[in-house]
Amino acid sequence: MSNDPAVANLINVHNHGHVHLEDSMGSDLHIVNNARVSFDQESEEFTAKERGLLNFLMRERHGSPWESVVFRFDVKAPIFVIREWQRHRMGSFNEQSARYSVVPDHYYVPETDYVRQQLGKPGAYHFDPIDDPAVAKSTIELIESTQRDAFDAYHRMLENGVAKELARTVLPVGMFSRMKWTVNLRALFNFVSLRHHEHAQREIRDYAAAVEDLAKTVVPVAFEVFEANGRVCP
Amino acid sequence: MSNDPAVANLINVHNHGHVHLEDSMGSDLHIVNNARVSFDQESEEFTAKERGLLNFLMRERHGSPWESVVFRFDVKAPIFVIREWQRHRMGSFNEQSARYSVVPDHYYVPETDYVRQQLGKPGAYHFDPIDDPAVAKSTIELIESTQRDAFDAYHRMLENGVAKELARTVLPVGMFSRMKWTVNLRALFNFVSLRHHEHAQREIRDYAAAVEDLAKTVVPVAFEVFEANGRVCP
Amino acid sequence: MSNDPAVANLINVHNHGHVHLEDSMGSDLHIVNNARVSFDQESEEFTAKERGLLNFLMRERHGSPWESVVFRFDVKAPIFVIREWQRHRMGSFNEQSARYSVVPDHYYVPETDYVRQQLGKPGAYHFDPIDDPAVAKSTIELIESTQRDAFDAYHRMLENGVAKELARTVLPVGMFSRMKWTVNLRALFNFVSLRHHEHAQREIRDYAAAVEDLAKTVVPVAFEVFEANGRVCP
Amino acid sequence: MSNDPAVANLINVHNHGHVHLEDSMGSDLHIVNNARVSFDQESEEFTAKERGLLNFLMRERHGSPWESVVFRFDVKAPIFVIREWQRHRMGSFNEQSARYSVVPDHYYVPETDYVRQQLGKPGAYHFDPIDDPAVAKSTIELIESTQRDAFDAYHRMLENGVAKELARTVLPVGMFSRMKWTVNLRALFNFVSLRHHEHAQREIRDYAAAVEDLAKTVVPVAFEVFEANGRVCP
Repeated sequence: MSNDPAVANLINVHNHGHVHLEDSMGSDLHIVNNARVSFDQESEEFTAKERGLLNFLMRERHGSPWESVVFRFDVKAPIFVIREWQRHRMGSFNEQSARYSVVPDHYYVPETDYVRQQLGKPGAYHFDPIDDPAVAKSTIELIESTQRDAFDAYHRMLENGVAKELARTVLPVGMFSRMKWTVNLRALFNFVSLRHHEHAQREIRDYAAAVEDLAKTVVPVAFEVFEANGRVCP
Repeated sequence: MSNDPAVANLINVHNHGHVHLEDSMGSDLHIVNNARVSFDQESEEFTAKERGLLNFLMRERHGSPWESVVFRFDVKAPIFVIREWQRHRMGSFNEQSARYSVVPDHYYVPETDYVRQQLGKPGAYHFDPIDDPAVAKSTIELIESTQRDAFDAYHRMLENGVAKELARTVLPVGMFSRMKWTVNLRALFNFVSLRHHEHAQREIRDYAAAVEDLAKTVVPVAFEVFEANGRVCP
Repeated sequence: MSNDPAVANLINVHNHGHVHLEDSMGSDLHIVNNARVSFDQESEEFTAKERGLLNFLMRERHGSPWESVVFRFDVKAPIFVIREWQRHRMGSFNEQSARYSVVPDHYYVPETDYVRQQLGKPGAYHFDPIDDPAVAKSTIELIESTQRDAFDAYHRMLENGVAKELARTVLPVGMFSRMKWTVNLRALFNFVSLRHHEHAQREIRDYAAAVEDLAKTVVPVAFEVFEANGRVCP
Repeated sequence: MSNDPAVANLINVHNHGHVHLEDSMGSDLHIVNNARVSFDQESEEFTAKERGLLNFLMRERHGSPWESVVFRFDVKAPIFVIREWQRHRMGSFNEQSARYSVVPDHYYVPETDYVRQQLGKPGAYHFDPIDDPAVAKSTIELIESTQRDAFDAYHRMLENGVAKELARTVLPVGMFSRMKWTVNLRALFNFVSLRHHEHAQREIRDYAAAVEDLAKTVVPVAFEVFEANGRVCP
């Protein structure tokens, strides 16, 4: 599932990014047993009956049993993606700081088919590729050169002895940052229901899809019933 | 460490209770690496340097790296203990329900040395054993018989066809309930700093001590620096 | 709206309980303006357009703007109700303690039509009144006498010098406790969507109905659109 | 206290920013009464006794009563400040979006005495003004021109029909954004204990100082005892 042959459970996303599932706790069976404690009972194995219970929990939106499964991800993403991510206030974040270390010259440059225009009206936007290929090409160049210039200015300030925390203020929201994300399955469902979704900005959608692909390997039935019940967070 | 030879990581607490560490995610090293992501760095092994960093994080109260370690416990405790536990609003709880299943006749009866009087004044109470052994003995009997009578009334109502959810209203707060608790290390530090503490009621203190003994096996250095820095939650 | 003529915004619930809306912050208009900050805009008054926006936010499940409205309630309810309430882990609770003060002899005794039997099967229960009026009558008497006996035992222990925190272990989950609850509108929607609901136990349902009646006076349009969109928490 | 004569409770911060206390709920007296509910008691007025109780609660770190006071702020700040703010995951945020509206050309340019160098070593940094005034001057110009160029590129892309959500990726983290922040007093204490603090970056420190000045007018005694007990969050 990883597309980096060197690291298991790692999916590369965009020109410098990745989502890496480092660790997890729990399984489909543990969700069942967290729910069955309300009857002071416990399942030893995962059968059709347990699958039925997971479906019931999802359909009736019993939320807390899903919180017993926990994941830790390592993520590298542009800051404009990380900002949307952290506004969920879900789970725990530890992120690279630009106050005490020099950040690498990694910034987001879109592929051609990601250079897009916004159509439609408030509440019902959609996005199509830019019509004119020349505009797409010059846009990519402008995105690239504007960010490169910002990094040049950043390095010039560092050479002049300016504090990193001040010099970084000129860096673009397209620059990549890295974070650890510890999150439970219920919060993760909420995240992917909103971000692996056509209303989400395409760049974060790609990250949310990677998160979902990786989490799915840990709790496959949980994701089946999530899908079967309209991808509504329990 | 378990005192139930049949189950690993299980500590019996009071006449019917237990704390069982079912699973965990993370280690001392992972806390370090969650912190070091702020410098975009990573440690491969846990040396004296990593121990020093854990101590620094605790002393300076950097809280989020500790959230990357997560535990799942199975707990059986009296309701008056569980109420204090859940008011922390920390972590995820799934608990046995008295609405849909008949609860077992398990209720808290204290050992003789737990029959105590309250001394001192508001804000500075302490507790000593009851002076008169005859009073201690009759208290234990009264605690036992009052709760047994309540369970008798409960069963009489069930036999008469009264709904479980109504019949249970007469049951005492001393009855045992069971719950799963998924919690991260930072929240667990908060819990034990307040409940494995001389101000806490003795019964929950015994549970908090068991939680701490079990968690300590997963992240021993984290607990060393917690102790060395005055047991203040980071 | 209050049914206690002496106190505004107070609704009596069950034999000793109440829900009292003590204070609130925000209004329908503030929810709109919290949402409109995403466009760096602000509404001066609440017109049909603002109503339409509230409906859009609810339908599309944009959750955070509803968090800008906050309530503080004073609640007196049986412990078995309070336990379900606090397990939501939503908002802030301060509750009466039985460790340091003697609790009053207030316990829940149901009205005749609340003496019920449980019918149906797991996942689809319903409740009907007990068929035999004599059983209903004797049930009420048993609920009353069992709890009175527990309070008698409690007082006997207190007279013998037993610490309050230990003596209270025999008290029933039907006893009333008091708490302050500070909660935002989004969490309150979650609470009433689950507890002012036919699946909830009748006693907490009555409390949730009172909460809803009181909150509705502060943000009437918010509750209209909540109702119009299937009472699903945004 | 406001330094904008046109708006009460508003403090301007940096070249385009502000902190505006829009509304609040509760007072010093309500904190006391949230605590006193544990004894089923209530104070009618705020006397020396109530002040003593607030001091006791702070010293002993009883946290929940402070959660009964809630504030709503409107904040305009650079994105690098907002990112640190939101990583606290405390309270509720609604923020201006650069996906659906064009953001104004507002970006952070420091005053001369804010152009600084970083001295000291990891864990014990401090910051002094840049030694050479010519460097300070050229730094300000570079910070200004780099961000202006980014906004120029942004506008060029918008003119070419590129979607706002993509064009904004080149904008600097120094650009101003606006948000509403609903937060309770306990979380606010945590925020100012960490951000109105010498270890915090100077720019967010100025915001935290403004937050504290405004909140203090609502609960003056709470802040007195916070100060008297070492500014440790309860």
